[in-house]
Amino acid sequence: MSTRFAPDAALLERACASYQTPFYLYDAAAIRAAARQLHDAFGWATGFVNYFAVKATPTPQILRLLADAGCGMDCSSLAELVLTQRLGLAGERVFFSSNNTPAAEFQLAHTIGAIINLDTPDLLADLVRAGALSQTICFRYNPGPLRAGNTIIGRPEEAKFGATRDQLLAGYARARDMGVRRFGLHTMLASNELDADYFIATAQMLFDLVGVVRAETGVVIDFVNLGGGIGIPYRPGEQPVDLGRVSAGVRAAYETQIVARGLAPVQLSLECGRMLTGPHGILVTRVRHIKATYRNYVGVDATMADLMRPGIYGAYHHISVPAKHDEMAEMVVDVVGSLCENNDKFAVQRALPVLEVGDLLVIHDAGAHGRAMGFNYNGKLRCAELLLREDGTIQQIRRAETLDDYFATISF
Amino acid sequence: MSTRFAPDAALLERACASYQTPFYLYDAAAIRAAARQLHDAFGWATGFVNYFAVKATPTPQILRLLADAGCGMDCSSLAELVLTQRLGLAGERVFFSSNNTPAAEFQLAHTIGAIINLDTPDLLADLVRAGALSQTICFRYNPGPLRAGNTIIGRPEEAKFGATRDQLLAGYARARDMGVRRFGLHTMLASNELDADYFIATAQMLFDLVGVVRAETGVVIDFVNLGGGIGIPYRPGEQPVDLGRVSAGVRAAYETQIVARGLAPVQLSLECGRMLTGPHGILVTRVRHIKATYRNYVGVDATMADLMRPGIYGAYHHISVPAKHDEMAEMVVDVVGSLCENNDKFAVQRALPVLEVGDLLVIHDAGAHGRAMGFNYNGKLRCAELLLREDGTIQQIRRAETLDDYFATISF
Repeated sequence: MSTRFAPDAALLERACASYQTPFYLYDAAAIRAAARQLHDAFGWATGFVNYFAVKATPTPQILRLLADAGCGMDCSSLAELVLTQRLGLAGERVFFSSNNTPAAEFQLAHTIGAIINLDTPDLLADLVRAGALSQTICFRYNPGPLRAGNTIIGRPEEAKFGATRDQLLAGYARARDMGVRRFGLHTMLASNELDADYFIATAQMLFDLVGVVRAETGVVIDFVNLGGGIGIPYRPGEQPVDLGRVSAGVRAAYETQIVARGLAPVQLSLECGRMLTGPHGILVTRVRHIKATYRNYVGVDATMADLMRPGIYGAYHHISVPAKHDEMAEMVVDVVGSLCENNDKFAVQRALPVLEVGDLLVIHDAGAHGRAMGFNYNGKLRCAELLLREDGTIQQIRRAETLDDYFATISF
Repeated sequence: MSTRFAPDAALLERACASYQTPFYLYDAAAIRAAARQLHDAFGWATGFVNYFAVKATPTPQILRLLADAGCGMDCSSLAELVLTQRLGLAGERVFFSSNNTPAAEFQLAHTIGAIINLDTPDLLADLVRAGALSQTICFRYNPGPLRAGNTIIGRPEEAKFGATRDQLLAGYARARDMGVRRFGLHTMLASNELDADYFIATAQMLFDLVGVVRAETGVVIDFVNLGGGIGIPYRPGEQPVDLGRVSAGVRAAYETQIVARGLAPVQLSLECGRMLTGPHGILVTRVRHIKATYRNYVGVDATMADLMRPGIYGAYHHISVPAKHDEMAEMVVDVVGSLCENNDKFAVQRALPVLEVGDLLVIHDAGAHGRAMGFNYNGKLRCAELLLREDGTIQQIRRAETLDDYFATISF
């Protein structure tokens, strides 16, 4: 599934004939297939749904593809709720998992019938005040020092998200007393994690807690959201997460911890974003300038305003040159943007074919947390997004920003 | 000069009576005074100008204040050139210091008569092609391994900016042969540097190069831009850079390396941004939610979309609670936003007075590289900017973003 989108030179030239670089290009068929494959892997789990993490790729046509392939939507802000609402998605297709939340967001989530996942049970009072308490509630669990962290999210006890076990137990009982009739349990501990066993261990931890909640409060947990964070292989040599293994491990835990203990049925869900769109979106950029000083620099027309992950995290993104795919990578270069900021580099000391001004480069695995994280620092404008549709045509699904957009909030 | 802006509770309440938190608030009088003080410190240097780094605070009313106090504008993108142009600033008040530059930006810089600072001399050909070569040119020097780096910019030989000494020498001769008559030399090696001697050493390095250029090519360097990067004391115990010491050191070098060698006059400039606006802008935010799990969390209504430095750099910003300024800091908390991203923290394990929902917090030293670096990740909207004017009134100088802004580049 995570085979990355790697269009040939002819396709890129076709896109460039109609649209100016830089732009994102997404592969509709692959995104749809990835969503289906994830749902198929959990076919044994009745009612399974993956809530796509909207923040990864908040573009209507991408969300529509994912919804058509069975995904729900994981929202965590007003804008994401409105986006989902405008797409006609509502009810339990929407999972609202926010923190430090203003009343208006709870109200909109309630209005569209979304599952509200409370960061801590003490927010029940806020929900009541906002008129947003429904018969269904979910709580977010943070295991704290009981669980080792992953490298991106960090140690759970230092994370701002979620509530402790004791808080949860008291919360479920309180919610029941307030009239709630349907209960969920959620956690989110990892980001871009490639170890299948991590997700199995998370399921085991949550299934155990389902039993504890039942034993100590009598509350029946109806659904468990295992969170997201399934990673993708950005770096050479990394392997995609084996979904079959994750699913089998979760299923075994479900059988022994839920079914065998008389706690079934519990509906399962995930909230993966990156694994569905990440490998299937690329940033296409053209070489504008080449210089050699103490290193070789290849300047391109995209900047970290378009894709910040390399600049702010030092994240690795594979780069290819489709028109020179049969040439040796014999030049070691830094691939840089034009931002007045030295971090504005897409690759550092990377071996690529000998490049010339005008060459098209593909920055891979940019489909998630790419355009969505862009900024306007240094007056840079964020680029457009295109979609390679299943019929082979290319459609613009987000226009590039203009100077008018940049100046929209000021007056002279 | 770098005494930070610290309004009292009454002023904050007055601002909040008309404007909703979060917002930036800038102190006009202090920004003007800072710009004047910098120019006064270099009063001995005929024609001295500080080109304000527009990317630090690209808001028209702030730029206008700085221009009125004597600053030129340091631009490095199309948007910044247009911003400057719309303010009516042109000619040598504008220094265009870009890299990996498209022809259209050179053309606009040329049209408004800006000093064009070429990243490398081989861009002379691009300038000619763009019809943007004038009688004045400046080159950007990168000393590479000849100079130690500073912690933010990194080692010069790993920086994408500038050209080597040999490239510069050849470049000046070539530019002269192409008809250029007025020559500048520039470097930019440090960011947020607090060591006065660093800036003196940079001046010594550039003055030495002025002599080498004259000796080896016969070209007369008419102006030297020493770059920017004078830091501000973000952390407790840090001291502002002693401008008198920097100025005296630069002057001594000028006397021995320029005047005594018969190379005078050379016009001097700087391109400082942070030191002029950083301490004099604050981010005002209100406590929305307080929770205790494994730590105490104070959730506020600003997010890293408004101020990214703490989240992406781990940068320290002082936080105060004006209405509780006489209370002990007896609670250790993480001050967090509502972004679905664990890095969305303004402070980690910080001692503050006991806080309640509704309290106003001031995040200090946010006037530079603050609002300008914001993003829209997770559908978050960037906040407004207000200006405390010298007559004591408060004016909105940038409106907050709306959902319509966020959705401007997509269609449903």
